[in-house]
Amino acid sequence: MQLVECVPNFSEGRREVVIAAIRDAAAGTPGVAVLDLHADAAHNRMVLTFVGAPAAVVEAAFRCAERARAMIDLREHRGQHPRIGATDVIPFVPVSDVSMEACIELAGRLGRRLGEELEIPVYLYAEAARRPERRWLPEVRRGEYEGLREAIRTDPARAPDFGPCQLGPAGATAVGARRYLVAYNVNLASADVAVARAIARSVRESAGGLPSVQARGMLTSDPNVVQVSTNLLDTDITPLHVVFEAIQTLAHVRGVEVAGSEIVGLVPLSVVTATTAHYVQTGELGSAQIVQSRLLDLMLAGHSGPVE
Amino acid sequence: MQLVECVPNFSEGRREVVIAAIRDAAAGTPGVAVLDLHADAAHNRMVLTFVGAPAAVVEAAFRCAERARAMIDLREHRGQHPRIGATDVIPFVPVSDVSMEACIELAGRLGRRLGEELEIPVYLYAEAARRPERRWLPEVRRGEYEGLREAIRTDPARAPDFGPCQLGPAGATAVGARRYLVAYNVNLASADVAVARAIARSVRESAGGLPSVQARGMLTSDPNVVQVSTNLLDTDITPLHVVFEAIQTLAHVRGVEVAGSEIVGLVPLSVVTATTAHYVQTGELGSAQIVQSRLLDLMLAGHSGPVE
Repeated sequence: MQLVECVPNFSEGRREVVIAAIRDAAAGTPGVAVLDLHADAAHNRMVLTFVGAPAAVVEAAFRCAERARAMIDLREHRGQHPRIGATDVIPFVPVSDVSMEACIELAGRLGRRLGEELEIPVYLYAEAARRPERRWLPEVRRGEYEGLREAIRTDPARAPDFGPCQLGPAGATAVGARRYLVAYNVNLASADVAVARAIARSVRESAGGLPSVQARGMLTSDPNVVQVSTNLLDTDITPLHVVFEAIQTLAHVRGVEVAGSEIVGLVPLSVVTATTAHYVQTGELGSAQIVQSRLLDLMLAGHSGPVE
Repeated sequence: MQLVECVPNFSEGRREVVIAAIRDAAAGTPGVAVLDLHADAAHNRMVLTFVGAPAAVVEAAFRCAERARAMIDLREHRGQHPRIGATDVIPFVPVSDVSMEACIELAGRLGRRLGEELEIPVYLYAEAARRPERRWLPEVRRGEYEGLREAIRTDPARAPDFGPCQLGPAGATAVGARRYLVAYNVNLASADVAVARAIARSVRESAGGLPSVQARGMLTSDPNVVQVSTNLLDTDITPLHVVFEAIQTLAHVRGVEVAGSEIVGLVPLSVVTATTAHYVQTGELGSAQIVQSRLLDLMLAGHSGPVE
């Protein structure tokens, strides 16, 4: 079944009534399930995570943005995190049976609605960007709300992809598409953080290592364990098992053993089916072979009645 | 979330209207999803597979049995497969967050309802058996419907656990609990089926090999590939990766390479999370870390409204 995750960020991390109203706008959308809500008072920002079928997720994102526009005034917003709007950023993420192209299309569809129906300036970013410099979110947010108020009117390079060339109290929104990010840590049985740092340098893409992998070496709470902490930006390109094995091999070269690994937070089912398929050599192992996935398919299809 | 699978067998594999009526009884039960239906005309028998929360699955099984009792007359039933009843056998199988003890309790609860409300004699079998000889289904079915008509009245050893000591036209039903059976094949790059047979003998429990593993060696459609075909009766006791590695090691000893493996049909999510956890050493990897499983949790809990 087609599943998309959406992880919108809103510029409110303090007022409970606003946080709850935005969350409920998503949770109340049929076919959408809210997986997580994180509100940070210092950042004065909340991050909502929900999943569902593509159309349902777009509708939920729209309802959240509508609620945020009505309840958050950027002219009065203070917080440590850079932001340009009440709804600051909305990424769509493929989870199951959905292409990146489909998520880019969803971003365009939502961006158009936000611009036309709510008169919010929208910048398409990341994979959905229509200008190369907008692939990078900090560039879209340059100058933040306060700086963008002037720039959006005067600088053609800052004209939005949808909506008016002026900022209201709700500001602007970056809407985009990106891969599912897997946070993955490998622990090493060593007290020497230099080992973890050296291995991190070897595996990360920025230093010519594994594509779509970010990595850094760090200490842990255990003085005899150091960690290579990674972000896997595209497990289709570099699967989890490749990262594990690369780090293990590089550790063995240094006479260090792996002391375990850790998947942080949620991952799509495909991450564990792909890992299983690799190690026991099953060839492709589809989600349709997993009981829970089949049940979810049937429930999402609304099969409470007789099947045919 | 708690998930139970139920795989009832009914003594009808020919009349479409009866097959559909029984399937619809399950599919129409709220919270239950029918995953598979297999009807066999020669056996004159159907196997239905459905999943859901424990209480919903018991209700669906009851409704199916009620329908089968009304539509199937064992006095007129002919087929190649041994049977004692219109609803011949109902096993409950733990899939997720459910213990074997809980499934045994479900079997007892359903057995009592079938006996009291439908007046069907019920024999508890497999893990739910209350007499040691009834752990083995062929013993429960000994003499089939025709033989049991007499024996149930005259032989105290054949008295049912629930319901009357006499058979009506719907016969009797075996209700039980068993583990999820994983059908798993490992292919070997060899033309010699004797290699597969020797390895099968080494790994199967009956010959002192791996506990809860059945195995046999066989030819495949590819003349250069032979197969060790296994049933994993309890992947908590002997996980899939142990079977794969044992067969791989035994093949290497004979100078034979593994040519891949194959999970046949559906498996619970825990099979792939356990395999992943083993190979990349994550420690326990719970279903709560899988996006699809979390979504299913929320849908089964009826969270279409605001969450709390």
